[in-house]
Amino acid sequence: MARLRHEITAVSGKARAGRLHTRRGVVDTPAFMPVGTQGTVKGLLPEEVSGLGAQMILGNTYHLMLRPGVVTVDKLGGLHRFMNWPGPILTDSGGFQVFSLSGLRSLDEEGASFRSHLDGQLLRMTPESVVRAQELLGSDLMMVLDECPPPGSQRDYLAASLERDARWAARALAARGDKGGALLGIVQGGVYSDLRARSVELLAELDLDGYALGGLSVGEPKPRMMEVIEGTTPQLPEGKPVYLMGVGEPADLVRCVGLGVDMFDCVLPTRMARNGTLLTSRGRLNLRNSRFKDDPAPVEEGCQCPTCRHYSRAYLRHLIMAKELLAYRLNTVHNLHYILQLMAGLRRAIAENRYDSYARQVLAGLESPGQERVALT
Amino acid sequence: MARLRHEITAVSGKARAGRLHTRRGVVDTPAFMPVGTQGTVKGLLPEEVSGLGAQMILGNTYHLMLRPGVVTVDKLGGLHRFMNWPGPILTDSGGFQVFSLSGLRSLDEEGASFRSHLDGQLLRMTPESVVRAQELLGSDLMMVLDECPPPGSQRDYLAASLERDARWAARALAARGDKGGALLGIVQGGVYSDLRARSVELLAELDLDGYALGGLSVGEPKPRMMEVIEGTTPQLPEGKPVYLMGVGEPADLVRCVGLGVDMFDCVLPTRMARNGTLLTSRGRLNLRNSRFKDDPAPVEEGCQCPTCRHYSRAYLRHLIMAKELLAYRLNTVHNLHYILQLMAGLRRAIAENRYDSYARQVLAGLESPGQERVALT
Repeated sequence: MARLRHEITAVSGKARAGRLHTRRGVVDTPAFMPVGTQGTVKGLLPEEVSGLGAQMILGNTYHLMLRPGVVTVDKLGGLHRFMNWPGPILTDSGGFQVFSLSGLRSLDEEGASFRSHLDGQLLRMTPESVVRAQELLGSDLMMVLDECPPPGSQRDYLAASLERDARWAARALAARGDKGGALLGIVQGGVYSDLRARSVELLAELDLDGYALGGLSVGEPKPRMMEVIEGTTPQLPEGKPVYLMGVGEPADLVRCVGLGVDMFDCVLPTRMARNGTLLTSRGRLNLRNSRFKDDPAPVEEGCQCPTCRHYSRAYLRHLIMAKELLAYRLNTVHNLHYILQLMAGLRRAIAENRYDSYARQVLAGLESPGQERVALT
Repeated sequence: MARLRHEITAVSGKARAGRLHTRRGVVDTPAFMPVGTQGTVKGLLPEEVSGLGAQMILGNTYHLMLRPGVVTVDKLGGLHRFMNWPGPILTDSGGFQVFSLSGLRSLDEEGASFRSHLDGQLLRMTPESVVRAQELLGSDLMMVLDECPPPGSQRDYLAASLERDARWAARALAARGDKGGALLGIVQGGVYSDLRARSVELLAELDLDGYALGGLSVGEPKPRMMEVIEGTTPQLPEGKPVYLMGVGEPADLVRCVGLGVDMFDCVLPTRMARNGTLLTSRGRLNLRNSRFKDDPAPVEEGCQCPTCRHYSRAYLRHLIMAKELLAYRLNTVHNLHYILQLMAGLRRAIAENRYDSYARQVLAGLESPGQERVALT
């Protein structure tokens, strides 16, 4: 049996809806995965995350490797048991953090050496070691190690980098054990369509379980990002899920689903929530704004999330200003609800072959100068 | 109808169990009130707090007065609606924070002037203004303004202070409106039994709805505190609840219930939880200790709280070390569960007239050099 099977149940233009069959259950696509960086979606219990409609979450291998350690997690029964999340978990390779957060020391054909951002310890990652780490976590969808070239890298550099990425992907596949989860490759190549095509060509030769688009939303102009996605998705092998990494702006989710993307993850909704910025169908609401001091209305009128059903903007603003723990929690519940409902709406629209009209309506709302106008940030 | 009625349903020695009838429902006594300083029991939803067995919570008038302001809370429908807690709320007068947290500027017969600890604004509190503030909050059990003399105050100072406290209590009663909640007086007098007796005598002349013991657990030796409580409770008017302010050590709760105390509040269980110290029947567990790194056991074997049912010490320790929001929440759930179950056990023991044996058993456990010995802090 395949480790991962993407059953497409409906298409609407280039958008597609389906069911991703993982070893820990089915995920309806297009799907948004809340990020549980350190073995927790910040502030929420697993049952709250699933209650909001999330079917799969993401764990960060780099963070869990440093603390509490993947061997420790394994000893305690794996990440699912450790954090009490019984559903599927996708883990990244840890590469992104090595290239962004930690102090990268050297990069060679074999792997990457870096210093822990926690204690400066010198560590090493190879395609094989990150597969092993993800296996110890018990990951259902593992990612291959790839380089995340610095934004603005030269074309020649990117061209060489993606060739090595493909060799690393082959090594990762070879290293996977019988009990390892699905393994997804990552298409690189910056904003160059011929490099992206070359990356797809190399990865398509391997028996990978799915494909991610990496190195996007890293500072390139938004239209350029969309062009790259639009150009790349049709080239990917059929029947495998397409995962756009690190993108979570509501408008981007809507547009990228229209380009054939099936899976997303992003810290945006949860991080914004902790910062007091709430997502609504009319754009963002910055609850720190003093105009909400006496506002008895919920974040969004008609929203059925637990936060909007019971709490006013004034109360949430009070909690934010007082730096109360409950602020992070209630705001995160609302933002995740918003994003997960948006995805559910997209799935329904695709099933009924009306993606275009639904997308237009959502995008018009997000850009609408409605009653929330002054609150748009 | 009385604003507050304490129905005593059982006694066991000096310990008593009963039902406190408030305008927002019944509270079983002896009761522990979790502290919701700024309109939230830190990190928890109201339904979680009540699900753990709390029937009444405490709100801090000083904090809510400064932020978001009692007029704002009133405009938004009162504190119950603001924070979504439908049950009874007891509010303090704000005096304690004025004398401890803020910069007290002056104290005279009329009231106290102080500076906000948030922005240095010069503010004033009188017995009348704090009743009005608590009425705007919609408090069910209000406290009179009293002086909290600095620990170590001279006898003469305390003697004069408690006389003024009694005059303030009379002014507070006179200031209360028809719709105001119950009003409780506060017995002062430091560790001097004759001064305590004088304070009781003065307050007993007023038509107060209950009596609190103030100025204890402020640095005096524990046996002295117990003596004062033991000497004071029998002197208090019958049929009114007795509330010991700011005491929440498990052993103190057990012992003070045995001296006739009906109500308690304390930040200890919630603050300790946020600091990674967990309460168990065998004493405290400091989960920061590295010996818990790989420990798959729950905080306390057999504990039925949502935290112990699903999470290991190792996971909680990981969350604490990573400063994850969920740590504060899961630890708070356990500690409140522990304290509220302790109170429920005391109520059952009193109902069955076996307070003494129950108390002995609990106290022996707390001091037991069991398997948790090295973890006692």
